Formats: sequence, structure tokens, C-alpha cells
Amino acid sequence: MPSSPTPASPSSASITGERLTTLFRPRSVALIGASDKSVFSMIAYDNLVKFGFGDRAYLVNRRGADTHGRPTVTSCEQIGAPVDVAFLMVPQAGTLDALSDAAAAGIRNAVVLSSGYGEAGEAGRAAQADLVAHAESLGMVLLGPNHLGFANLTEGIPVTSIPGLPRQGGAVALLSQSGASSSAMLDFATMVNVGLSYMVTLGNEAMITAGHVLDFLVDDPATRAVAIFMETVRDPETFRRAARRAAAAGKAIVVLKAGSSALSARTAAAHTGALVGDAKVTDAIFADLGVIRVDSIEDMLITAGAAAALGRLDRPGIGIVSISGGACDIVADRAEDLGAQLPELAAATTEALTEIMPDYGTVQNPLDVTGAAIIDPTIFTRSIRAMAADPSIGVVGVIQGVPWLDDGSAHVTQRFVDAIGAGMADAACPTVFINQVLQPITDHTRTVMAHGGVKYVIPGLRQAIVALRNVAWWSDVTREAGRRHAAAAPVTVPPAARRHGQWPEDAARRLLADAGLPVVPARLVTTADDAAKAAAEFGGPVCLKVVSPQIMHKTDIGGVLLDVPAEQDSVKSAFEAVTAAAKNVDGAIVEGVLVSPMRRGGTELLVGVVRDPHWGPMLAVALGGLFVEVLNDSALAPLPVSPAQARQLLGRLRGRAVLDGVRGAPPADLDALAAVIARTGDLALALGDDLESLEINPLRVDGTTIEALDAVVTWARKDSH
Amino acid sequence: MPSSPTPASPSSASITGERLTTLFRPRSVALIGASDKSVFSMIAYDNLVKFGFGDRAYLVNRRGADTHGRPTVTSCEQIGAPVDVAFLMVPQAGTLDALSDAAAAGIRNAVVLSSGYGEAGEAGRAAQADLVAHAESLGMVLLGPNHLGFANLTEGIPVTSIPGLPRQGGAVALLSQSGASSSAMLDFATMVNVGLSYMVTLGNEAMITAGHVLDFLVDDPATRAVAIFMETVRDPETFRRAARRAAAAGKAIVVLKAGSSALSARTAAAHTGALVGDAKVTDAIFADLGVIRVDSIEDMLITAGAAAALGRLDRPGIGIVSISGGACDIVADRAEDLGAQLPELAAATTEALTEIMPDYGTVQNPLDVTGAAIIDPTIFTRSIRAMAADPSIGVVGVIQGVPWLDDGSAHVTQRFVDAIGAGMADAACPTVFINQVLQPITDHTRTVMAHGGVKYVIPGLRQAIVALRNVAWWSDVTREAGRRHAAAAPVTVPPAARRHGQWPEDAARRLLADAGLPVVPARLVTTADDAAKAAAEFGGPVCLKVVSPQIMHKTDIGGVLLDVPAEQDSVKSAFEAVTAAAKNVDGAIVEGVLVSPMRRGGTELLVGVVRDPHWGPMLAVALGGLFVEVLNDSALAPLPVSPAQARQLLGRLRGRAVLDGVRGAPPADLDALAAVIARTGDLALALGDDLESLEINPLRVDGTTIEALDAVVTWARKDSH
Repeated sequence: MPSSPTPASPSSASITGERLTTLFRPRSVALIGASDKSVFSMIAYDNLVKFGFGDRAYLVNRRGADTHGRPTVTSCEQIGAPVDVAFLMVPQAGTLDALSDAAAAGIRNAVVLSSGYGEAGEAGRAAQADLVAHAESLGMVLLGPNHLGFANLTEGIPVTSIPGLPRQGGAVALLSQSGASSSAMLDFATMVNVGLSYMVTLGNEAMITAGHVLDFLVDDPATRAVAIFMETVRDPETFRRAARRAAAAGKAIVVLKAGSSALSARTAAAHTGALVGDAKVTDAIFADLGVIRVDSIEDMLITAGAAAALGRLDRPGIGIVSISGGACDIVADRAEDLGAQLPELAAATTEALTEIMPDYGTVQNPLDVTGAAIIDPTIFTRSIRAMAADPSIGVVGVIQGVPWLDDGSAHVTQRFVDAIGAGMADAACPTVFINQVLQPITDHTRTVMAHGGVKYVIPGLRQAIVALRNVAWWSDVTREAGRRHAAAAPVTVPPAARRHGQWPEDAARRLLADAGLPVVPARLVTTADDAAKAAAEFGGPVCLKVVSPQIMHKTDIGGVLLDVPAEQDSVKSAFEAVTAAAKNVDGAIVEGVLVSPMRRGGTELLVGVVRDPHWGPMLAVALGGLFVEVLNDSALAPLPVSPAQARQLLGRLRGRAVLDGVRGAPPADLDALAAVIARTGDLALALGDDLESLEINPLRVDGTTIEALDAVVTWARKDSH
Repeated sequence: MPSSPTPASPSSASITGERLTTLFRPRSVALIGASDKSVFSMIAYDNLVKFGFGDRAYLVNRRGADTHGRPTVTSCEQIGAPVDVAFLMVPQAGTLDALSDAAAAGIRNAVVLSSGYGEAGEAGRAAQADLVAHAESLGMVLLGPNHLGFANLTEGIPVTSIPGLPRQGGAVALLSQSGASSSAMLDFATMVNVGLSYMVTLGNEAMITAGHVLDFLVDDPATRAVAIFMETVRDPETFRRAARRAAAAGKAIVVLKAGSSALSARTAAAHTGALVGDAKVTDAIFADLGVIRVDSIEDMLITAGAAAALGRLDRPGIGIVSISGGACDIVADRAEDLGAQLPELAAATTEALTEIMPDYGTVQNPLDVTGAAIIDPTIFTRSIRAMAADPSIGVVGVIQGVPWLDDGSAHVTQRFVDAIGAGMADAACPTVFINQVLQPITDHTRTVMAHGGVKYVIPGLRQAIVALRNVAWWSDVTREAGRRHAAAAPVTVPPAARRHGQWPEDAARRLLADAGLPVVPARLVTTADDAAKAAAEFGGPVCLKVVSPQIMHKTDIGGVLLDVPAEQDSVKSAFEAVTAAAKNVDGAIVEGVLVSPMRRGGTELLVGVVRDPHWGPMLAVALGGLFVEVLNDSALAPLPVSPAQARQLLGRLRGRAVLDGVRGAPPADLDALAAVIARTGDLALALGDDLESLEINPLRVDGTTIEALDAVVTWARKDSH
């Protein structure tokens, strides 16, 4: 079972987005521990002044010394005005007292910079528990500790010691578990013209976690997408609930999650004390929630910017228009590598573009408008309109250069930008201007864009393909958000007497069969004669497996015989052999022997449900044999899984072509197979929290024939013996 | 067989790097077709003036009209001074005459902008052939047509209609088959401080191809790395020769090759008429030559810049030092994804770093120097020195922010840059400064860097990891450049009477066995009695295969029987069965039946050699069964292949873990297997150009037992029947 995040604080569920409003939209702020000697204090105060919030900031200094050129008070109670947020920059030892002082003055929110908590070993974890308990006893909520604060950039309220905050607000909220990387992220966001609504550093998330902030942001009118740099999801349930709400609200979440490598798991543990979640489970959970995963700061911010600018796309297809054939080639290659869809154009679109393009041009997607557009830039205008009207295109990207330095050559570019902007203005779907390389969007760039009426630029071909693919994927996955899968026919599970330990195969078989899952026929027999009779009825070779609750690995002890001829003598001696083998095992009680027809050929799969300690029951599907052994070829999803989702899981297997039929084998009935897989998940859910794991291995598929050949059910409660 | 590039011009081999000196380092240039109406002419003249080359430029205008504010001549002969390059901007119809005129004036090099040649259908291709023939008849060499010229940026000689050339020279030569993308590439190179020695647009490469330019650049003292944007390698032999010379000279070649996707193959054909080479063959050839492949303009230029700045690394290991734990995590994740090596540190390094780091820090690679370095930046200095001295570290990357805009905060950064620069100054291996995000390197950045003595910055974590991985790979692959593999024991091939068509199995078997390759024992028999005798000698089940030169697919016609018990009657009736099956085939002459022991278990591979029409014989290795059928799991390399290279090929198979032994099977003897694979390649080479393909399928490996179970040899000459 994969291991994952640290437990959330007991108050986790009570921290609603609404409760956080006074934290993130404070009327005033107290800087507690303000000091001319502290660079953190200086930066924080400087930020407040720069944003015109200085008169709503109060400085609290233990000795009451003038600080940052202003008088201070020694206690929050002396402020004499309502304060919403206490920004604590005091040393760890003074934090609890400072919280009490703030609470006494009616302050209900704290932002705690101090380090030496959860990230600092056993003593630090104890101190963090004390900190949380103290805040809870005071009715306060707490951001941090071990972070750099936050900035509300929509209303211009910086409660942070990060220098160089952007002065313009925007539609992307940026959350980061890392304080040290936040400056670089802010710089890059500014550079590529991704405006921010909030910048929140999360630190140790002792009380307020990423999920809580997300929950607040779903209702924040300025925020249209959320970018998160995180090492671990500390409060899975809160995160999951908030992510579902964000999906329903059409707000994309883009996560750069560090810690997928073994090495990085070590690194993260070293510096934040965070346990890094199991990468495969996180992938599956994020895929299920429609959370976009990226692998660089650049892609995180550009993707979030694109999601905020474009919103949910109606169709996943990307249309590309460019004057550079080279750029078209690069885009086509990257689209293939990265799984972005550049659909073929409909006949009507092709016809319209043929009218627009010069004779020597080739009408396709990506579209090279050719050098003819140098003479007549309206070829751009008209091509964009035509492509945007294509029934499979959800967004049109137009590749062209846009300057970032004013070298006096803007007029050369401007006529193209104007022609492109004209096409974008009345395009039937969202559009984006793409610069060939990653470069800054400067005031000069914005002037050129504004003149042409171009609203949005992604700099860089690779960046654009990644961002548009991500937004298209998110649009598709979250379009049906809220519509959860309900079991086609409800699975009713008879009460079982013995819900502990591991069930023997016959009990597991009955459970599956009762739930309507196809199981290979079998007869449980207790005598050699009955075994021979059963084999004769099946006709043809059989296999015999001993049934004993005490024997978990029956193959290992010789308790299984395959391919036994149906002749009476053969079956009888096989019966004796497997029971004798079982009797050699100390304390094993033989309940009987399962006789079933021997199956050959077809494809074997593994379908299993395991319970992740943090994210709950996960369904795994794998191809049997070498595929899973050598390639670890499996796909994972949280329950419930609908038949349609089960088909998608099958499609994610690298060896999926095996199911299409190889070496003359018939193709597998994928719909029937997906239904069996989904129902296995439904059964596991119906079994409730008592279930530890349920595994069908193998599930045999041969054309339309689907049968569980063996199954294991394990309960959370251990056997008493 | 994969299809690939267009044929080179007949004069290809005569265009040496030396011959191109007067082209790329001209004393003077004639602009032919200079006109105030032509934007190309205006830009070209403007470039020459800007670079102070105006007085060595002559304008030729058909009507002798004043152009660009200068008098013109109507013919090159009127120039009356030696001219090295004719830059032709005349329409296609006037090109041949213009060439004649230039040649008559003693000009030996032409740069031809005009389009309408190879990229423009059948007529265009004919015009291009005429153009080449004409140039050859005049003793001229020709760059283009259908391009934008070139710029020698080392000496400041622009012969190009690309605007906005960088004014500083540098160590990277940039070649591009695309003219339209060249401005974006130049902009990006300037932005990230990658200085260029040359910018050459290649166009249709009618005479001078990328390989010729490369050959010139190998001897160019200013050029230390070459970046190439290409859609196809038009002259494989010239390219291969030049690439080998570049490797020997320690000059890295970095290629962004568009056209790996099916869609892009279509796009490239549409706009340049280039046939895009088979992606897998190109990959194998580039890997063999040590040519670095990248997938974006950004990675191409940053990698080339890194190779030029760092040179060949002594060791592939990358050491990372950073104050941001988040950045360390991202780097660790990307290193794993992208295959960059971040080695564990040696004990001595760990000891040294433990002395330097605060107690709460964790000593590992990547190294998080922790917040302690804010108070004492010499932790950076000393950590860099310690890490650079590690025996497995070949380059140290130090992640820290460096500003690109002068916002007055440089002093904050400067103390870190200075401390880092001090560590770099006496580091035992090359070092690089890494900015957390991709951003411009401006004059301001350079000032900050120069103050700290930092020579080289890569902006962006992902970019840095890609670039360092690429340079490390190139360093390793090309270190032994020139040391080609020679067959361990020379393969001598007896002259064969019948080198055409496809050989029957027994002939192929003998060929392998004579070359010292292990082949399963077999006896060729012509009677049922002899078959039975052979089977008895082998003892145990056998297989029988009919031998007939007329029957290629003996399994399909029932000419093969497997797992025949060694009993006399069984073998005899099997003999009759396979010969009878063969006799049913019209015109089939049965030469006999091969009897060999039946083999079971082990792993089956396919080892084959096929001849690529452009790159010559290629060796393919694949795992048999589902791996190759479902996953297309194979690895490819050009011959010759050494045993060490053969092992690397095996390591590139996705299912390679099968060879380590699964399900209790013994691990394969990889050294012995690699020796057999390499010798198969040597045999194919020894067979010479007559050979079309040689395939061992399957080659069975079972622990230390390696045997060819079947083989097919096909000759280029078709059978007469």
C-alpha cells in the first residue's frame, strides 16, 4: 500500500473558505516582532507601504522601540483599532505568547513566519502540535509556520516578506509550499504577463492547507485559475473537496508537484519534513480530479495563465496558423510527443482555406500561410476565422513574432499583429497568439498587442503546446464534473460472518459471483469420487486447488494442479495429491478441493482494489504476465470507476494492443471487460471500510469470454490465529 | 527499408570546408538585383552598412538606377575590384544569367535567395537541377536557393536579408533550413547570452549542404559548438564525415530536427519539398555520431551555448548546489525524467560538506545549502569547491537568482553572486550558474555576473538539466571518437556461388556457423531413415523443417513440425509430412529436411541487419514475442557495432529486464550475447553491398546458452525465377 501525506490538523474540516475571508482580505494588519534588525520585517513593512497599506499596518515591538521610522506598541491590545491579521515574525520561543496577545486584542488570524517546527525533527513536530493546539484554543486560524506570508494582489494587501511583488493584479492565484522559490515564480509570472490575484506561501500547513486556500479561491471572483507548487498534499480530503468545487466552477488547478523521483523524495524530507506521497497514486488522484500536472515553474505559470485567459474549451482540438513552415513542423512534432490534438480539418474548412491560400500552399493543420501573407496579411485574418469555425477546433493558436525590446522595428511586426488581431476579434472559438520562443512580454509587447487588439500571448512553441494540451485535457475531464458514476445495478453484499484475515478462494469466488461478476465454473468437492464426477461433467482437462483458510499461497505448497486430464484416475490421484500437500501444513484445515475446467489462451489481466491510507480505495488494472512483471504496466484510479473510466484505464496500458488481438487471437470485448472492471470496483465499495484489498488475478479475456480464474479478498481486521 | 533524404548534387564531395572559406569570409560582396523596391535588398544592404561592411559591398542593378542612396553598376564586370560572393536577389528567370555575369567577373561563390526551385514541384526541381549544373559549369559553389543568406558574426560580415542580427560574436554557429524561423532563433540566442560565430540559412541545399558548412566550421577557430535546425539530412555521407570530424575536434553538434511526427512529415513536404528521413534511423545515426537531439529552439540554443562554454566534460555526473529546497526537488525530478545523472557524493565529499553545512542541513546531491547561506554566503563558496572536487562530478550547477531588470535590488543578489563566483573561480571542474526560471540575460545581468566573476548562466531549471544532460551525454559518446570498432576475429566469407534472392535456411545456417556464430545443431537429411537416425542422435524431441530454395515461408505451407518425439515412427512420419507439404508447392525442389533438437524456455531475440538507402547497413535488436509485436520494442545502430555498443543496444530495450531473468529463469550472459550480436553485424559488413538483409530470428538466450534457431539471408540481386 502506498504511503502518503501527513495527517491534517483536527480542526481541518472547520476551516471553510468563508472563514478565511478576514485572513485573505484583512482590513488591517499587525506586524508582531517588527524590528529594524530583521530583513523579513523590513521587507514586509516596505511591501505594505509600497502598496499604500502602511496606514492600516500596526507595528508591535517587544520593547516599544521606534521601528522602520515609526512608533510601535508593545502589545496588540494597545493598537486600539480592529485588526484582522497578526503577522508574527517573533522567534519560535515567543510565538505562543504573541498568539495569546493577538487573540486578546480580538485578532482571529495569524501568519507565522518562524521556523523550527514540523520541518525540524521530533522537537519541532511537538512544537508545531503545541502551536496548533494553542491557536485552536484561542479560536484562531494560522497560515504557516515556516513560510513567507501571502499577498492579496487584487486589493493590494501584502502580508509577506517576499520582495519584488508584482503591482498589477490578475486572474491566477499562486500557492507555494516553498518560500525560497516564490521570488523566482513571481518574477516569471510578471515576465510572461501572467497576472496574479494572490500569492500564498503555505509553509508547513500546520492548520491552513492548500485545500483550504483553494476552497477560498473557488469563491474569489478575481481568481480564474490556481497554480500550486507543492511537495505533498497534506490534507487529502480537503484538497479533494476543494478541487471538485474548482472543477465545477470552471477554475483550473495546475500543480507542479516536486517529489516524484526517489532522490527528490529524499530531498523534500530533508528540507520540509514533508512525507512525499506515492507518485502513482497522486497521478491517479489528480487525473481523476482534473488537476493539471506540469513539470516546470514555466509550464505551471503559462498553463495557469492560459486556463485563466481561455476558460474551458468546448472542444479539445487545437488549430495552428503560422507563416513559418519550420514552426509548423516543430509544433506538429511536439503535439505528437506531448499528446496534443491537432485535428484534421473538416471538408468545409479545407474548402474555405483553399479559397484564402495561394495555389502553392498546402491546406492542413498546422497551416503554413506561406510568404504570400507577407504581401497580404489578411490571409492571416481570414485563415484564423476559417479555422476557428472548424467543428473540431476548440482553440486557435497563431504563431508570429512579437517584440519585447523596442528597437524601432515594431512597425514591421505591427501589420501582422493587426491582421492577426482582426481575425481573432471575430473568431468562433478562443484564440491565442504564440511567439516562436520564450521571451518576456514587456510594456512594449503589450503596446504592440493592444494596437492589434491581441489579448493574450504565450511565448514559446513548446510552452504553448504544453499549455494548450493541458487546458484542453482539463476542459474535457472537468466538463462533466459533478456527474459521478453510480453503479449500474446496485451491488448488494450479503452479510458475511467472518470479515477478517484473508478469505479462501471459494469464499472469494462466491462473493464475486453473487455480485454478478463472471467467474470460471468450479465445484467444491470433499472426496476424490466427487472430484472425478465434477471433472467428467466439465469434460476436458481440469485444475484442482485445495481450499483451506490457513493456506494463503496454495501454489507454493503444491496445493494446485493444473491441466489434469478428466480421466477418473488422474483426477482422483490429483485430489489426493493436493489434499496431502495441504495436510503437511501445520494446523491447516482442508475445507475441500475446487475443481474447475482448465482454461487456455486469451489474455490475462489483474484487476485489484487496494485502500490508500490517505486517498481511499484505488482500482488497479494491469496486463498479466511479462507486461506487469517486466514493464510494471498498470493503470490506477480512485473508486468509483465507471465503465467508461475503466475503458480509459485499459487505454493507458502500454501493452493495450494485446487486447486488440495479436497472433490471430480475437479482439477482446472491451465494453464487456470495462463493465466487469467497473463492477469489481463497485463491489469493493459496497464492501465498505472493512475491506483491505480485493484482487482478481487472473481475469481471463478471450474475445467475448471474460472470467475470473482466481480471486483473493483480504479484510482490514487481522485473523485471530 | 526506411526512406530518407534527397540525393546530393554530384559535386558534393568536391565542396570541402577549405573551398568555402572565400564564401564565409569574403573580402567583398556584390548585391545582385539590388532594388529600393525589394525589402530583401533593403535589409541586406542595411545589415552591411550597420556592420561597417558597406564600403566592401557593390550594388548591381539591371538598369543601373541609384539604389539605397548609392550608385549601382549593371554588371559585375563593371565593379573593377575582386569580389568573393555574389548575393543574388534577382527573380528566378534571371538567375542563370546573373550567375554567368558573376562568374565572368571572377566571383566563385553565390548566395541565391530566389525561391521556386526544389520546393516548388516538378518544374521547380528541374530548375534547381539546371541551376546546379550551371553553377558547376562556371566553377561556382552556391548556397541556397530559397533561403535568406548567412552572416559571419565573428568578423562582422552579413550576407543576409534577416533583420536584427546580433552585434556580438560568439562561439556557437547556428544553421537553419528554415529562413522564417531564423529571426526567432537569433532573438532567443541574444536573449539568453548565447553568442554566435555564424548564422547560416541553408534553404534547399542544392549544392552546399549542412554537412559542408559543418566541415568548414570544424576548422573555424571561433566556433566551439554548432546548432542546426533541420528537416532532413540532404547529404548523409558529407554530414557523417563532418560530424565525425567535429566530434574529434570536441565541437558539439546540437540538432533540432523537425519531422519526427507523421503530421510533420506531411508539413515539411508541403513547404520545402524535403523528404523527411525515417525518424528511427535518424535517431540511431545521430546517437552513433554523438549528435545531440533537442526538441525546441530554446533547448537547441541553450544546449549549444552550454557545450561551447563548458567543453567536453571529464565525467558525466552533475552536482547541484542551491539555497532553495524546492529547486532541489524540481531538479531531482527532472534529472530522473530526463536521464541526467546526479551521482551520490563520495565519502570524502560528504565529509567536507558536513564541515561546511549547518547541523540541520542534509548533505546530498542536489545540495540545499539552507537559509544559513543567507547569513554566511561563503557556504556557497566552500560547497561549490567541495562538490567540484568529487570524483564522479563533471560539472557543478549552482542555482540562484540573477536579475534581468535593474530594479535597484542588485546589491541583495550581488553578495550571493560574488560568493558563488568565488567558489567557481577555483573549482576543480567546470561550473555553471543556473537561474530558477527562463529569463533574459541582459546587460544588467552581465554586470552583476561580471562583478562576481561568474562567466556563464543558464536561465531555467528544466533548460539547465536538459543542457547539462546533453553535454554530459555528448562528452561520453564522443570521448572515444575516432576509435572505431574492428572485428575481434576478422570475418572471412567464403565466396558463394549464388548471391541472389533469399537463401534457404541451411545455407543461411552454414554462413552463420562459418562466421563463428552459435547455431542450433541440425542435420540435413534426405530420407526418413536418416531423419530418424539424426533424431535418435540428438535424443529428445526434435523439429523438422523442409529445405527448398523456392519456399520462403515454410511454416505457412506446413513445412515445419515442432516438438516431434524422437521415436523412429514419429520422426519418419514427420519427414513424410513436411516433404509432402513442400511437394504441393508448384515448382518447389526439395533439397532435404533439417532435423534439429527442440529448444524450450529462454528468451528469444531478433537480430537483423538491413541496408538503409541513405545511411547504409543498420543493425536492429529486438526482444521476441509480444515485446516486439505489441510494443515495437527494438533498438537500432549503424554498423559496425562493437560488443560494448551491442550491450548498450540491449540496454535500450524497454523489456530488457527479461534478460535479467524473470520467473526464476537464469540471467542471460549479456557479454556473450553482445559478442554474438556484434559478430552478426561484422558478418553482414563482410558480406558487402550485395547483402540486402540478414536476420537471425529467433536468437535464443538461456543463461549462458546462446543459439540461432533460424536465420534468413536476402541478397540485393533478385532471383531469376
